[in-house]
Amino acid sequence: MTRLHIDSAFDDDLERIRDLMLGMGGRVEEAITLGARALEERDEDLAQQVVEGDHAIDALEEEIDQHVVRLLALRQPQAGDLRAVIAVMKMAADIERLGDYAKNMAKRVPVLSSAPQIEGAGAAIRRQARQVGQMLKDMLDAFARLDTALAEDVIHRDIEVDHMTNALFREFITHMMEDPRNISACLHYTFIAKNVERMGDLVTGGAEQVIFLATGERFGDRPKGESTATIDVQPD
Amino acid sequence: MTRLHIDSAFDDDLERIRDLMLGMGGRVEEAITLGARALEERDEDLAQQVVEGDHAIDALEEEIDQHVVRLLALRQPQAGDLRAVIAVMKMAADIERLGDYAKNMAKRVPVLSSAPQIEGAGAAIRRQARQVGQMLKDMLDAFARLDTALAEDVIHRDIEVDHMTNALFREFITHMMEDPRNISACLHYTFIAKNVERMGDLVTGGAEQVIFLATGERFGDRPKGESTATIDVQPD
Repeated sequence: MTRLHIDSAFDDDLERIRDLMLGMGGRVEEAITLGARALEERDEDLAQQVVEGDHAIDALEEEIDQHVVRLLALRQPQAGDLRAVIAVMKMAADIERLGDYAKNMAKRVPVLSSAPQIEGAGAAIRRQARQVGQMLKDMLDAFARLDTALAEDVIHRDIEVDHMTNALFREFITHMMEDPRNISACLHYTFIAKNVERMGDLVTGGAEQVIFLATGERFGDRPKGESTATIDVQPD
Repeated sequence: MTRLHIDSAFDDDLERIRDLMLGMGGRVEEAITLGARALEERDEDLAQQVVEGDHAIDALEEEIDQHVVRLLALRQPQAGDLRAVIAVMKMAADIERLGDYAKNMAKRVPVLSSAPQIEGAGAAIRRQARQVGQMLKDMLDAFARLDTALAEDVIHRDIEVDHMTNALFREFITHMMEDPRNISACLHYTFIAKNVERMGDLVTGGAEQVIFLATGERFGDRPKGESTATIDVQPD
């Protein structure tokens, strides 16, 4: 496995932080998968499990921050090493937010489970979430190996998530217009889809950090397909 | 004005970072005010100004990060000073996100300006945004003076934002149910209200960082009134 640096106490510390982050990322990946499954299958117990599991994710971020502070104090890294440590801390904060979005999805399961069924909504969200979960997995692999090609691939795939999100918005609007009794549930699904789209953005940000860590350079303007601000479905 | 530390090169650096952050916070405060005004008054030029102004906010965060890296490298602060620097960097990241939410609100102005009017929606969002803008202003004052009483006051006021948000959600759902032609516009307003509510959460997080900076202790569990996950308005 590629290391971020030549052997030193600094590297051992950074490796420990990296391992914590990969563990944290794995938990978030699972939370996304299980949250989306709980939503589709209307499984309130599973949803509750995802909600409760978020504490462990928060605790891991806290632990990473403590390690970062200790590393900065003890090793006093310079230049590139210092930027690497800060990049890792920012990635950890983003992954923690991913966990929050997964928890938020799970928290909506009980109310959606007792609302009228929206045909295909759960399955569509699950596909969207699967895409983001796979991007997260690949971003973490790219981080572990400092694989810039994989990181770039993740960045380019975000546009698919944006397209899926816009398609979902149109679908939910149609359901709402067809029957006002669908409005409340569709609003929840719309929030969930928006959050999954934001998760894709956060994962993309993580992939950009990986490229920065590996090359010291910022990734150029990334593709943008998302456009909630201009949903083109207009009422009749 | 209270300083974070006894005179030293470290303090001068930190003071510079603090000033940058206060400047950045002031710009975000303005973006919130102008974004909400543009929304209510359907002023697309003003909205465009807010969207373009976000670059300067992003650039300020970048500048703060560079100062932080330089401070860490040159001054190698320990213990409390180190934690203070990291807390400030995290606050800057949160304030940058507030700016993103203000920009997102402004980006929705053109589409909402050509959509059917939703009675009172713009004015209600503006009241909600004014509340959050005032919280941000007070949080920044609390940060400048390390005023924990003011920071706590900000934290407690977030529950009002949550209540306003839930009231707005109910209102928008009612409009959607009354007339399907309102659905698209109301969805935009719902996203905006949700984002303003998130801004309140971020400001609250900033106020918690102020308390941490001033006392070295974490603020206890903060009040939570927000509950999109359990919107209680059900379709008939």
